[in-house]
Amino acid sequence: MSRVLNKKLRKKITTAEEAAKLIKPGHNVGMSGFTGAGYPKEIPGALAANIKAAHERGEEFMIGLFTGASTAPELDGVLAEVDGISFRTPYQSDPIMRKKINAGISEYADIHLSHLAPMIWAGSMGRLNTAVVEVTAINEDGTAVPSSSVGNNKTYLDQADQIILEVNSWQSADLEGMHDIYYGTRLPPERQPVMLTHTGDRIGQRNYKLDLDKVVAVIETDAPDRNTPFKPADEDSKKMAGFFLEFLTHEVKKGRLPKDLLPLQSGVGNVANAVLAGLMDGPFSYLTSYTEVIQDGMVDLIDADKMTVASATAFSLSPEYANRMNDQAKRYRDKIVLRPQEISNHPEMIRRLGVIACNGMIEADIYGNVNSTHIMGSKMQNGIGGSADFTRNSFISAFVTPSVAKGGAISCIVPMVSHHDHTEHDVQVLITEQGLADLRGKSPKQRAKLIIANCAHPTYRPLLEDYYEHAQKVCNGLQTPHDLRLSLSWHQRFLETGTMQPA
Amino acid sequence: MSRVLNKKLRKKITTAEEAAKLIKPGHNVGMSGFTGAGYPKEIPGALAANIKAAHERGEEFMIGLFTGASTAPELDGVLAEVDGISFRTPYQSDPIMRKKINAGISEYADIHLSHLAPMIWAGSMGRLNTAVVEVTAINEDGTAVPSSSVGNNKTYLDQADQIILEVNSWQSADLEGMHDIYYGTRLPPERQPVMLTHTGDRIGQRNYKLDLDKVVAVIETDAPDRNTPFKPADEDSKKMAGFFLEFLTHEVKKGRLPKDLLPLQSGVGNVANAVLAGLMDGPFSYLTSYTEVIQDGMVDLIDADKMTVASATAFSLSPEYANRMNDQAKRYRDKIVLRPQEISNHPEMIRRLGVIACNGMIEADIYGNVNSTHIMGSKMQNGIGGSADFTRNSFISAFVTPSVAKGGAISCIVPMVSHHDHTEHDVQVLITEQGLADLRGKSPKQRAKLIIANCAHPTYRPLLEDYYEHAQKVCNGLQTPHDLRLSLSWHQRFLETGTMQPA
Repeated sequence: MSRVLNKKLRKKITTAEEAAKLIKPGHNVGMSGFTGAGYPKEIPGALAANIKAAHERGEEFMIGLFTGASTAPELDGVLAEVDGISFRTPYQSDPIMRKKINAGISEYADIHLSHLAPMIWAGSMGRLNTAVVEVTAINEDGTAVPSSSVGNNKTYLDQADQIILEVNSWQSADLEGMHDIYYGTRLPPERQPVMLTHTGDRIGQRNYKLDLDKVVAVIETDAPDRNTPFKPADEDSKKMAGFFLEFLTHEVKKGRLPKDLLPLQSGVGNVANAVLAGLMDGPFSYLTSYTEVIQDGMVDLIDADKMTVASATAFSLSPEYANRMNDQAKRYRDKIVLRPQEISNHPEMIRRLGVIACNGMIEADIYGNVNSTHIMGSKMQNGIGGSADFTRNSFISAFVTPSVAKGGAISCIVPMVSHHDHTEHDVQVLITEQGLADLRGKSPKQRAKLIIANCAHPTYRPLLEDYYEHAQKVCNGLQTPHDLRLSLSWHQRFLETGTMQPA
Repeated sequence: MSRVLNKKLRKKITTAEEAAKLIKPGHNVGMSGFTGAGYPKEIPGALAANIKAAHERGEEFMIGLFTGASTAPELDGVLAEVDGISFRTPYQSDPIMRKKINAGISEYADIHLSHLAPMIWAGSMGRLNTAVVEVTAINEDGTAVPSSSVGNNKTYLDQADQIILEVNSWQSADLEGMHDIYYGTRLPPERQPVMLTHTGDRIGQRNYKLDLDKVVAVIETDAPDRNTPFKPADEDSKKMAGFFLEFLTHEVKKGRLPKDLLPLQSGVGNVANAVLAGLMDGPFSYLTSYTEVIQDGMVDLIDADKMTVASATAFSLSPEYANRMNDQAKRYRDKIVLRPQEISNHPEMIRRLGVIACNGMIEADIYGNVNSTHIMGSKMQNGIGGSADFTRNSFISAFVTPSVAKGGAISCIVPMVSHHDHTEHDVQVLITEQGLADLRGKSPKQRAKLIIANCAHPTYRPLLEDYYEHAQKVCNGLQTPHDLRLSLSWHQRFLETGTMQPA
């Protein structure tokens, strides 16, 4: 049975090939999708075919691509492969997309995830020509049931000149009621307080409003999200998770955190999973999570009655857990809230709720600056995502990384980071498998001693000590001692010799 | 007539010498003071004498000094001079204080101005032993009338183990009623929305609450604030102000800003004054300002009925305007609101109100990163202050600097900034006397072209073009092209030769 119940939109049902023709060269296109959940499954491929054909005819055809965050090979992958993306924002992690950005074919604007929707609405990102959004169903009244991610969909549906919908029957119909789509945002001077004071509060409506006249095509699909298989945590991840949980336990003992902690945010990946696994065995209960993505470990915590509610903008589950969510969405609907990313990542809520943020990084320097985005200064990895939305406004902001990468050829603690995404003013806790440095209220020199002693790998620790001692002798001021001739030399050495270790 | 009307506190009136004895070695002391307004006038000097005497006896005596922001020679100056400050936060601009920081005698933690009060309350800055706060009067009911700055005073009075008050009769008694001291802040999980939706809203009370049992001494003073004489704007400042006003006018025309703009924030200094002067002659009326400090130009705008209301945490006036404010405080009381700095700089309000932020800087790089704090990477100038509180959450974030400094020996547009305070993700508009670059929604490479063409000085423009071209050839990825061997070489050349210009 079709999930397109609205009569007017039933008449717009067509093929991906026909729908894709409505996207023209130079269009700015806002597509759904956040960490591989809820992206359109068929239009991007059909569009890529059109672009390829145009290029073969010698015609120019590229689009500006806006999403929630990262998507999948069927979206970023296929469009990047045909050199179809002139401009990309706000986050990506597809290998082909990344390659095209670093080859200079696609321009990439690396924007905080909470900032993009208000910027589009304010008109400072240019005109949005087309929205391509996956939904779970279209109701008779013309509202649309969100699917496994919300992202910027509300804004794209509201702001685009024309709308193309993909109705994906793979998504559970029982997702209806899990989402909280807040329509109270305004542009200044008319903005009002966002009256959300607890993680699980619902302040919006279940489904998207649609301007039916703007819907130019509806596609029906039945395809799974890109869900990444779960990897068991490795030893290093377990160690880092252990240090973080020990720190939180200590903060509770000192009376600086309540015994059920504060809402947790955690980046995607091994360490996040290990932290969540650690919480399963830990002393904390009545936990909550105000974060970007719902991961397997949160579902476990909910099932174990350790976590009362989790708020995010998307799922990021293993195939096994995604199937479970699809089968039992009704059961999880009271424990999970999916919101627009401007709300899941909103500074107002993150500050108010007192979120405990823990994010991965590429490298940190001895003074507490963090690089989340660039390899050796120039090359883009994925983007800043929501890490700064959370870090800047959180109650506690932590970053984690193994102390070395590439089998020891790279130290993740360096004299100066090669790109700055989080400054010394914002980074409070650094964690590697070597240990944890609590930087709160410390001067740069106090931080340097802690970071080198607690976080650096033993191979690099003496080299960092040498740099720090030397820099104090030659610098022009002792606030943040640097020798600018050497501060980025470790990265340069890696580029030239394949290792940061001196010959 | 004494302004100490409360009977219990009248009995605590004493001399600065006696009061200063209550401050012990190792104390963390929270003092009032913000941009030279409302700092204690006598206790710091008496304390400095005690410290000096202790040092002469061979005893250790240093304190941790917390303020609102910068203070005056009578506070930072005298205490730094005697090597009396082991730890300083969150902002300073005194030449002797700066010298001691850069000599490694005082550790300085450079913290966002809005962050310090909540961090102290949360316990993550250690125990606060003493508060030393200037007030205008002490009422019979035991409340205290704030003086010319609010800063972190509410928090220091609430959190310190003991309180010393300076009652300064130089401050106008008519200031009573101008302040809005908000007592609704909480620690999470009990934080609530701050229900301030218009610049002039009052959501708190006029005066500070005092725990009378904690007040250990009261001093009576009669001394002016450190108010800096007004300097007429130079030609470069007028040009930069012109570019900014032209940009705002253009945004209004495009429908991206309302015709009475949005609340303005502006840093202290020449350009800020020139912008305010420009607004006097400009087409905008019904202006408002949600900012840190009330400057001369805002008073002019209020007098000319161009500005309806200004909100800040302190005055920063010339002696002439300070006297006028003192004489006519009653008249300005409805047009000016002074708040705690955690509210004047609160991300929630700055985002909600849609503040237009414009701050000075030391340097920017071709990709839009900004250095607000360090000279040539290591040496502290003043600190980040509230620039990031506003920049990160504003509706439009702009930075201004002349394109060169030291008679052309320094380019303020460089390949890579030598310290990062505001990252590429946060900086939207750069302005020099050469022109303006609108970076919103641009990739790093698109920004580089704009910044070099519009903002760089003609002397350095070809050198920046050369760097950018060269970096694209040698870099490991084209997102943010850098040659890490050369990216900081301009600063190094300046340190070695006294100029960034090649020989």
